[in-house]
Amino acid sequence: MGRTDISVIGGRYGLSSKDFTPTHAKSVYDHLNNGNFHNFTVGINDDVTNLSIPLSKQIDVSPKGVVSCMFWGLGSDGTVGANKDSIKIIGGNTDMNAQAYFSYDSKKSGGITISHLRFGKSSVNMPWLIDSADFVACHNPAYIGRYDMLGPLKEGGVFLLNSQIPTEEVFTHLTKDEQQQIIDKKIKFYNIDALKIAEKVGLGTRINTVMQAVFFKISGIFPEDEAIALIKNAIKKTFGKKGEDIVKMNWDAVDGASAALEEVKVPSSVKEAYVPKKLISKDADAFARDIIEPIMHLKGNDIPVSKMSFDGTLPTNTAKLEKRGVAPAIPHWNSETCIQCNQCVQSCPHAAIRAKQIDPKDLENAPEGFVTLKSNTKNDRDLRFKIQVYTEDCQGCGVCIETCPTKVKSLEFSPINVEREHGEREFAEFFDSVADDVIDGIGLNTVKGMQFKKPLFEFSGACAGCGETPYVKLVSQICGERMLAANATGCSSIYGGTFPTTPYAQRRDGRGPAWGNSLFEDNAEYGLGMRLAVDSNRRLLKSVVDRLLTLGTTEALTSALKKNADLWGDRSEAGIDAQKATQVLLDEAYEKASNEEAKVAIKKLIELKDYFTDKDVWIIGGDGWAYDIGFGGVDHVVASGKNVNILVLDTEVYSNTGGQASKATPIGAVAKFANAGKQIGKKNMGFMMMSYGHAYVASISMGANRLHTQKALQEAVEFDGPSIVFCYAPCINHGINMMKSQVEEKRAVDVGYWPLFRYNPTLEEGKRFSWDAKAQDGDFQEFIKSERRYSSLYKTNPENADALFAKAEEDAKRRMEFYKSVGQIM
Amino acid sequence: MGRTDISVIGGRYGLSSKDFTPTHAKSVYDHLNNGNFHNFTVGINDDVTNLSIPLSKQIDVSPKGVVSCMFWGLGSDGTVGANKDSIKIIGGNTDMNAQAYFSYDSKKSGGITISHLRFGKSSVNMPWLIDSADFVACHNPAYIGRYDMLGPLKEGGVFLLNSQIPTEEVFTHLTKDEQQQIIDKKIKFYNIDALKIAEKVGLGTRINTVMQAVFFKISGIFPEDEAIALIKNAIKKTFGKKGEDIVKMNWDAVDGASAALEEVKVPSSVKEAYVPKKLISKDADAFARDIIEPIMHLKGNDIPVSKMSFDGTLPTNTAKLEKRGVAPAIPHWNSETCIQCNQCVQSCPHAAIRAKQIDPKDLENAPEGFVTLKSNTKNDRDLRFKIQVYTEDCQGCGVCIETCPTKVKSLEFSPINVEREHGEREFAEFFDSVADDVIDGIGLNTVKGMQFKKPLFEFSGACAGCGETPYVKLVSQICGERMLAANATGCSSIYGGTFPTTPYAQRRDGRGPAWGNSLFEDNAEYGLGMRLAVDSNRRLLKSVVDRLLTLGTTEALTSALKKNADLWGDRSEAGIDAQKATQVLLDEAYEKASNEEAKVAIKKLIELKDYFTDKDVWIIGGDGWAYDIGFGGVDHVVASGKNVNILVLDTEVYSNTGGQASKATPIGAVAKFANAGKQIGKKNMGFMMMSYGHAYVASISMGANRLHTQKALQEAVEFDGPSIVFCYAPCINHGINMMKSQVEEKRAVDVGYWPLFRYNPTLEEGKRFSWDAKAQDGDFQEFIKSERRYSSLYKTNPENADALFAKAEEDAKRRMEFYKSVGQIM
Repeated sequence: MGRTDISVIGGRYGLSSKDFTPTHAKSVYDHLNNGNFHNFTVGINDDVTNLSIPLSKQIDVSPKGVVSCMFWGLGSDGTVGANKDSIKIIGGNTDMNAQAYFSYDSKKSGGITISHLRFGKSSVNMPWLIDSADFVACHNPAYIGRYDMLGPLKEGGVFLLNSQIPTEEVFTHLTKDEQQQIIDKKIKFYNIDALKIAEKVGLGTRINTVMQAVFFKISGIFPEDEAIALIKNAIKKTFGKKGEDIVKMNWDAVDGASAALEEVKVPSSVKEAYVPKKLISKDADAFARDIIEPIMHLKGNDIPVSKMSFDGTLPTNTAKLEKRGVAPAIPHWNSETCIQCNQCVQSCPHAAIRAKQIDPKDLENAPEGFVTLKSNTKNDRDLRFKIQVYTEDCQGCGVCIETCPTKVKSLEFSPINVEREHGEREFAEFFDSVADDVIDGIGLNTVKGMQFKKPLFEFSGACAGCGETPYVKLVSQICGERMLAANATGCSSIYGGTFPTTPYAQRRDGRGPAWGNSLFEDNAEYGLGMRLAVDSNRRLLKSVVDRLLTLGTTEALTSALKKNADLWGDRSEAGIDAQKATQVLLDEAYEKASNEEAKVAIKKLIELKDYFTDKDVWIIGGDGWAYDIGFGGVDHVVASGKNVNILVLDTEVYSNTGGQASKATPIGAVAKFANAGKQIGKKNMGFMMMSYGHAYVASISMGANRLHTQKALQEAVEFDGPSIVFCYAPCINHGINMMKSQVEEKRAVDVGYWPLFRYNPTLEEGKRFSWDAKAQDGDFQEFIKSERRYSSLYKTNPENADALFAKAEEDAKRRMEFYKSVGQIM
Repeated sequence: MGRTDISVIGGRYGLSSKDFTPTHAKSVYDHLNNGNFHNFTVGINDDVTNLSIPLSKQIDVSPKGVVSCMFWGLGSDGTVGANKDSIKIIGGNTDMNAQAYFSYDSKKSGGITISHLRFGKSSVNMPWLIDSADFVACHNPAYIGRYDMLGPLKEGGVFLLNSQIPTEEVFTHLTKDEQQQIIDKKIKFYNIDALKIAEKVGLGTRINTVMQAVFFKISGIFPEDEAIALIKNAIKKTFGKKGEDIVKMNWDAVDGASAALEEVKVPSSVKEAYVPKKLISKDADAFARDIIEPIMHLKGNDIPVSKMSFDGTLPTNTAKLEKRGVAPAIPHWNSETCIQCNQCVQSCPHAAIRAKQIDPKDLENAPEGFVTLKSNTKNDRDLRFKIQVYTEDCQGCGVCIETCPTKVKSLEFSPINVEREHGEREFAEFFDSVADDVIDGIGLNTVKGMQFKKPLFEFSGACAGCGETPYVKLVSQICGERMLAANATGCSSIYGGTFPTTPYAQRRDGRGPAWGNSLFEDNAEYGLGMRLAVDSNRRLLKSVVDRLLTLGTTEALTSALKKNADLWGDRSEAGIDAQKATQVLLDEAYEKASNEEAKVAIKKLIELKDYFTDKDVWIIGGDGWAYDIGFGGVDHVVASGKNVNILVLDTEVYSNTGGQASKATPIGAVAKFANAGKQIGKKNMGFMMMSYGHAYVASISMGANRLHTQKALQEAVEFDGPSIVFCYAPCINHGINMMKSQVEEKRAVDVGYWPLFRYNPTLEEGKRFSWDAKAQDGDFQEFIKSERRYSSLYKTNPENADALFAKAEEDAKRRMEFYKSVGQIM
């Protein structure tokens, strides 16, 4: 049966399509058409079963006098938080009723948020989202031409745009359709450069307070002075816990907002207009055109049932189609000072800054201004070196800039439009088109060498500056097409594969990782199943090869099969090359096969041809999965002795669900369910896994030691048995500047907060455990108190904070000493 | 709605009552009465809903020429195994069709088994149990007068009895009803003393081979020589894996069987007859009379719906009603050599041998022959000492005899009838009636002292010689009425509380442990919930006490409440005494309360009066639970830091489900899923739990060190936080003589197979870990090879057995060294 689309806008009849058989739908439809409705269309449009019921007309039954406002924000820009405050201010300080709904997409902090605020003297008990608004604010200029923001705006309504475009020019930067709507509906149009104010007062890209202030100014609900006082009060309440400095910055933002607001003069007719780039090129595949593009425009409900994937599988290599262009400012490469270390590339959470060695021949058609350097590797091809920023995929987190080790930074922020203007968008396209994986002159056992490999995990929807994604990306570079991933529910499953796109990518030949997502509680077992399936397929393949060699086949295939057999366990490129050489010979050998038995055997080989090389099974998840809910499974899979690799992205907190304490949360950290600071120490899971004596166990922190990180992951892959790698991953829940996520990784190791070690049972006794952190350098207390997850304890549990922090340090010390001592006797 | 009883005898329509609504039942009934039936009654008899359908008549439609045989055996006597062989012999060596069903009860090896064998030239496709038999064998004389074995026997059928009663007397040892049936139905009656033969050839109580041989002799299916050859061949096949010695013993049993079979002369009328003791006394409570007694006679289907427990709760103190009397031989106490150490009492898996100190005054009415000694404790009451065997509850395992440390054993086997004859049954009743828990002259911190406490876990249905139950029994002695148990599914839940009886018992005042059973996967959490509930109730109680003391109440209650408050955390008897002193004052205080507020408070105190003392929450299960399926929960509960005690009954294998490997199974042991010997070492769960640094962790082995065992359990209870105790528990799956289960516990520690240690985080640094095993004494290889779970590897994986055994020793050594080293740095 096909999917059933129900266009019930509003919550009241919001059954999921799963619940909705045509019978149900009919009865709800009848019910609604009997007058029991508010504001919706209803019906079924199903081109697979064709059991459709015509869609009804949309009817607006909102009461008069209710003001409806929509705010289009970018996840983590603070829009939602500010609107929660705004609606409380209105409800709490006037005689009006107030209501707010917030709709998010699944993207992490770079995603879209729409806040729906209603207030008025009459009842606002309207359990559906706004589709007819008096006020619409666009907090992100990238949404122009992409979403139909003006569609719901009533005649005479207000449109507020945040942009860095000068007010006198801004109208022409709208699309023709948007301009026409403004003119036709006599919309009042305001423009403000909120980013400028936010940056000035120290809030970085968090423009929410500025936008809130101007919303109150425009709405005129309160006299301006009163509004400002109320906002400031709310700021104190909301941000008080996070520190006085944060309050101060936000107050400054409020003070600066009013003056910066400018009304846009609306001409009487459309002249010059912005023509948005088509999101998906015309020659894209059907899935991109039929599924991804409408969803990119928030028109997913319009996709016909017949276009949906039948079994839930999706193509990879699709996140790159999104080209969200959400970063207000992106890094600009200063080639003069660059030392070609590729650390920026390794550290980028979004794979939006890349390095390549390029053959000079390939540069012949390079666009003008495409700067390259002479590559300083020991190659003999006179290769050029290039660092490229992907303007439309960059999230603007600045991690690369923080990572850049040159005295004068070789990367610096530049407004995205400036970068676009001097051609970086086109440069990225050209960069993409030249050969990948040119590793000449340097080894894959170096940070730099590995970063010449194309990442097969790119442009995920993770929060800007995410601490997790650089590890996943590195795994994709190490394992390439051999990677088979089982992903637990959590951040990594959301940025890893929320319908319809996935950051798991393909090489130019269409090969790449395969990825699946399971539950919190059974993901390790899910991955173990992948391992067993691969093993079983390879055993079968081997036996068919043996049979075919006895039966006889073409000379070419015979020799190819023998070569494959010689390279049976080989993880290097040689194994993959041998596999490819065989694959191309199968069809011909099938045609030429002299007897039925051989034909049957070759047919089986064609079916199993992907298994000539072994796969690298990765079981991926966060600490909530590995330490808590999925721990029983992780333990069982490690105990099984099977060859799987487990990647624990340890943010020390349930990140995806909003910051609940896990067993990985250390003493003293504030989290949900541990508001007075966690009282019990971090679980020594590394030690538990080491105690099996047959598993590879490592603890890594990329920003602390980039080569160690890479080495541990490479050793985990090479280890023929279970491997588990604990990765320190700073998170927005830590309350840090995410631009510094990799710096925090270094600090954590320096002060003895996070251990670096590797335990390899195949090494000789006494050498199995290697403690890889240097002696303590820096103050533990200073480190933890610089993160708001700790410092906020002074607000939530001030009497005990210092004692708990002392205990935290003691516990960390004990743990480090314990690892070192245990390591000696493993 | 009440329970729905469906009397569908036979499997075909054997829906569970859960599936069976009256509508279903009616349709099945109609279907059956249309002729689509074989052999059954059908209907509904429900005295709660009264939606009944009259029961149909029973109709036998078995084809002519089919021989039907029923064998009534005792679990683990080998009856089922032998019958499986018999039916294979018949099906495989004649032109007859053959079929067998086996019905077990939930009792472990002491339970009842009924084998249903059919064979004949016509089809035997009869998917229901036999209810009209040509041959009935009773392998256990204790079943006489208890089960209706002769009811299904056809006219002219054969009844074979195994008994130690001389053949010339045996007829008079049947009940009057049984005798009459034999006479009326002209039944051929045979008697054999199979135990005598089994014991002679070295098979102990395993009489199966003897009974199998005489079955073939009587049935005449094959000429006797041929039958013997076939049986011997089958024995080789079945027992070959377990070793040549086992095969030889069974062959000897076959050879001895024929000569021992004697036909019983059946008189023409009943004269002298056996009058069975009523299983449940007339003054027993309603549950015992209405539920337990019918089930004891296998008449559970006749219990009216209205008598069933509404919410699933059951009374405790009921296993003692069973008086199964299943042991052919039981220990006899030789008081002359007894040194009053009470080790036999501690080691008894069934609480069927007890010690008491008895006030001489209490002996005034002692029955004649009730031997006592002068107690050698430092009491000043001239107390007498007595060891008492409970004849009807003893399983005859002999563990106590093996445990007895005196040079000339103070306990020796004696046939149960001999013991009954000289009055031990009555002695046990008298022993039961004199005061319990007379501890004078000795401390509860000694093995001996603790064994004067009445166990509140007695007469469970565990296998004879069970290694687990002595630990549970000891916990019940240590914690008494404070014990609250959450039991995982597994052996301990089956012997702990299979409907309708439970071994959890009560003191004379009706107080005792409360017990509940949850799943494999959530039992730790279930127990944590008990802890949280107790904590919450106690917090509430405390606040109500404080309020009442402010409001004012009677002088007596005021002072009692204050005393309770002083003893708030006290785990000793003093706390329980204070609680009791308070409880009796509450009703009066309620009556006398001067105002409504005080009345409300006292009413709440009455509701919560059981919480004046704290509870000892025990979370109990086997290694399949703790190491595998429930591990995630155990880990989470230990991490919580809450005050619970976890008892891991480690048999190193899934015992209840028939011997599958768990993560506790060591290298080299043969188990299901590890037929070629387990390849991976035992999980080091003790380390894992120690690594938290806030949990009490111990590893104990009762037979190795009785005081250490008791001390560890007592320390676990006293520890204010999570405690986990790993108990080495030999099991029938180990392939050992279960009489030696406690001896095996000692050997395991002596050879360095099982560690003894305690880790107590409240002790000062450096002293937290105590390694409690002595230096190795005995050969590791010799030990493991003496257990069939290991030695059978020579059959299942002979090439690798020695290498795997060497690895097992290495792994055990590594583990022991590791514990010792880790202990130093904890």
